[in-house]
Amino acid sequence: MALIVQKYGGTSVADIDRIRIVAERVKKTWDDGNQVAVILSAMAGVTDQLAKWVREMAPLHDAREYDTVVSTGEQVTVGLLALALQQLGVPARSWLGWQIPLHTDGTHGSARIEDIDATELKKRLAKNEVPVIAGFQGVGPMGRIATLGRGGSDTSAVAFAAALEADRCDICTDVEGVFTADPRIVAGARKLDKITYEEMLEMASQGAKVLQTRSVEMAMKYHVPLQVLSSFSDAPGTFVMDEEEIVENEAVSGIAYTRDEAKVTVVNVADKPGIAAALFGPLAAASINVDMIVQNVAADGTSTDMTFTVPRSDLARALQVIEDAADALSYDRVESDPQVVKVSVIGVGMRSHAGVANTMFTALAEKGINIQVISTSEIKISVLIAEDYTELAVRALHTAYGLDAE
Amino acid sequence: MALIVQKYGGTSVADIDRIRIVAERVKKTWDDGNQVAVILSAMAGVTDQLAKWVREMAPLHDAREYDTVVSTGEQVTVGLLALALQQLGVPARSWLGWQIPLHTDGTHGSARIEDIDATELKKRLAKNEVPVIAGFQGVGPMGRIATLGRGGSDTSAVAFAAALEADRCDICTDVEGVFTADPRIVAGARKLDKITYEEMLEMASQGAKVLQTRSVEMAMKYHVPLQVLSSFSDAPGTFVMDEEEIVENEAVSGIAYTRDEAKVTVVNVADKPGIAAALFGPLAAASINVDMIVQNVAADGTSTDMTFTVPRSDLARALQVIEDAADALSYDRVESDPQVVKVSVIGVGMRSHAGVANTMFTALAEKGINIQVISTSEIKISVLIAEDYTELAVRALHTAYGLDAE
Repeated sequence: MALIVQKYGGTSVADIDRIRIVAERVKKTWDDGNQVAVILSAMAGVTDQLAKWVREMAPLHDAREYDTVVSTGEQVTVGLLALALQQLGVPARSWLGWQIPLHTDGTHGSARIEDIDATELKKRLAKNEVPVIAGFQGVGPMGRIATLGRGGSDTSAVAFAAALEADRCDICTDVEGVFTADPRIVAGARKLDKITYEEMLEMASQGAKVLQTRSVEMAMKYHVPLQVLSSFSDAPGTFVMDEEEIVENEAVSGIAYTRDEAKVTVVNVADKPGIAAALFGPLAAASINVDMIVQNVAADGTSTDMTFTVPRSDLARALQVIEDAADALSYDRVESDPQVVKVSVIGVGMRSHAGVANTMFTALAEKGINIQVISTSEIKISVLIAEDYTELAVRALHTAYGLDAE
Repeated sequence: MALIVQKYGGTSVADIDRIRIVAERVKKTWDDGNQVAVILSAMAGVTDQLAKWVREMAPLHDAREYDTVVSTGEQVTVGLLALALQQLGVPARSWLGWQIPLHTDGTHGSARIEDIDATELKKRLAKNEVPVIAGFQGVGPMGRIATLGRGGSDTSAVAFAAALEADRCDICTDVEGVFTADPRIVAGARKLDKITYEEMLEMASQGAKVLQTRSVEMAMKYHVPLQVLSSFSDAPGTFVMDEEEIVENEAVSGIAYTRDEAKVTVVNVADKPGIAAALFGPLAAASINVDMIVQNVAADGTSTDMTFTVPRSDLARALQVIEDAADALSYDRVESDPQVVKVSVIGVGMRSHAGVANTMFTALAEKGINIQVISTSEIKISVLIAEDYTELAVRALHTAYGLDAE
C-alpha cells in the first residue's frame, strides 16, 4: 500500500465524460489498496477564457481580482470529480486552496506556496477518503485567493506530494512521457523510462513543455518521485528521480529546442572594464532575462561585439533599454534577429563522457548548419542557429547520439 | 448621504459589456455621495449550465459538491465587476461568502443564512470602498461553501442590507418594477409605485416572479425598504415597504396567477371525523404542499368529496400517496386535473373595502368562467379555473377593479 498523488491536466478533465474516465483511473489505483489524493486543473480552455474576460475588463488588472476569477475553473472540476468518484462508490471530497489551507505569499497571479496544512487531508486519507484538490490555487496573507501562475497545477501536485509525504506523484497528461526529442519532429523519438530532475529541468525549460519548471525544482528539493504519463492509456510513463537512483546513464538523454529566444548583437562596444555591467545591468533592471552571451574581441583589441539572447517577447523592450543606455555604453550599432532557435543536447552522463560537444559540432557541420552562439552547463550544451534549420538540426543530433528507436 | 445596497441579476451581468454598464450605474450612485454595496448573481445561464453538469455527473448528488460547483458563477461576476469599478476610478473589492463570512446552516443546496459578520464590510464602506459581494452563497458549519437555493441572490441582498443597516435595498433586474398584472397578458397593466411587503409576498408566490419569496419575508422582518427596478433604465421602480408608510391603499393592488397547481378530487370519502387528517397527513409526510381545499358534503350526509390543489410537479407523487392510503380512507375514486390555473386578486385595502369578492365572482361569471375552488386570506382572494381561461380571467379582473392604465 502506498500514498499516491495523481494530477490531471486540462485535457484530461475537458468534459463530463473525460472526468468520468479520470474517476475510473483514480478508483483503479484506490481499489489496488493505495491511498490516493488527486490534484486537478480546470477544463481545457476555461482558464484562458476567464483570463480573457479579465483582460477585456481591465488591461492592467488588480491581481487579486484576477485570481478570484480565474481560480473558479478548478473549483468546478474538483466538485465534479468528487461527485464522479462518489458515483463509483469511492468516498471523495473536494478541497479548495482556502479550505486546506494552502498558504501562499502575496504575489497574486504568480504566488509562491509558503506552507500547506496537511493535517485534515492526512486524517481523511487514513480513513480511505480521496481528497480532490483544486490545483493552481491557495490563499494569500490577506485571506484572498491566490493563484500560482500558469501551469501551477503541476507545482500544486508536487507540493501536496511533499506535504503528504507521498510515495509517488503521477502527472497525468496528454503525452505518454518525456521523449528523447519532440516526436512531432523526430519520427524515431523514444519515450524515456527514467530521467533525472536536473535533466528534466533542462528539458522543461528547453521547450519540452510536459512539466512546469517550478514543479520540477520543487520535486528535486523534496525528493518527490515523479511520473509523467498519459491519462488516456495504461502504459507506464517517464519516471523523474534523483541521479543516484538511475544506475546507468547515457551520455545524452535527449535533444530539446526552443524558439522563444531572439539574438541581439551590440557592435563595436569599447572593450574596457565594466562594459558588461553597463549593458546587462539596465536589462536586468528591466526584468529582461539574458540567456546565452558571447563576446568577440575585435582584431585591434580596442573594441568588441557583444552577442546575447533575450526572450523573443522582450526583444523590442530590450532594444529600447540598450538605446536608452547608449551614452554610458558607446557602441556603433545594434543588430537583432528573432529568427533563431536554441537547440540543446542534455544528459547528466556527459559529465563522465568525453567528446559530447564535438559530436554535436560535427553533426551540425555535416549538415551545413552554422552555429551562432554556444553555451554550456554541466549537463547541457546549447547552440543558437537559424530557425529554418530547427528540424534538420534536431533530427541530425538525435541520430548522432544514437537516440533513434530501432 | 445614504447607504444603498444594489443587487443585479443574471441578465444584468450577462456579459462584459453589461457588467461595464452595471459599473457605470454603481459609480453614479457612489458619485452622488452614497455608500454602495453591490450583490451580484452569476451571468445569465451559467448557474443552469453548472447545475446541469452536476446532474449529468450524479443524479442524486452530494449537495456540498453541488454547492462547490454552482457557486463559481457569482465568483466570476464579482471579480469582473470589481475590476470594472476600479477601471472607473471607484475603489472596489470582491467578497465571497467565506471571506465575509456569511454563515449558513448545513442545508447545502438551499441553506438558510444564520449570521453575517459585517465588521470588515462596514470598515470598507466607511472608507468609501465599494464591496462587490457574491450573492447566493455563504459558508456552512463545516467550512464548506453553501448556496441559498435558486434566486438566493435576492435573499443575500436583503440580508446584507439588514446587516449593514442600509437605507435602501435596490433589486435591479430586467423588469421595470412590480405591475398590477403580467404585462405580457394585460396590455393596460401599470407599474405600481408602492406595494406592501404582504402584497409583494402574495405577488411573488403567485407567479409575479420578480422577487424571491424568502427575500420579501426577510425584508418584512427587518423592515428593509426595497425597490424593484430595471437595470437598463433610469426610471424609478416599485418600492416595497411597511403598510403604515403607504398613506392610501386601493382595494386591489394587482392580479396574479400561477399555472403551478393541479387539482385533485377524492370522490365519496366517508364523512366522519379524522378523515381530513387521514388524507392530508400522508401528503404532508411526503413533503407535498396542499394549497386550496374544499369539501362538499353529499346530499345523503354520509359521504363527501374532498377537492384540493398540489404543486403540478408533485401530482403523480400525490396520487400515489393517496392510493397507498386507500385502506385508511375508503373512497370511491380519485380524479385529477393538471389543466387548472389559480388566479388571485391581491390588496391590503380589501380589509377595509366591502364587496371585493363579489366584484371578482361577477366579473368571472360575466365572461362565462366557471369557478372550481375558492380560497381567501385577509389580503387575497384566489379562484381555481380551467387553464384555457387564464388570460381572459386576468384581463377581466384587471378591468373590473379599475386597474387599467388610462
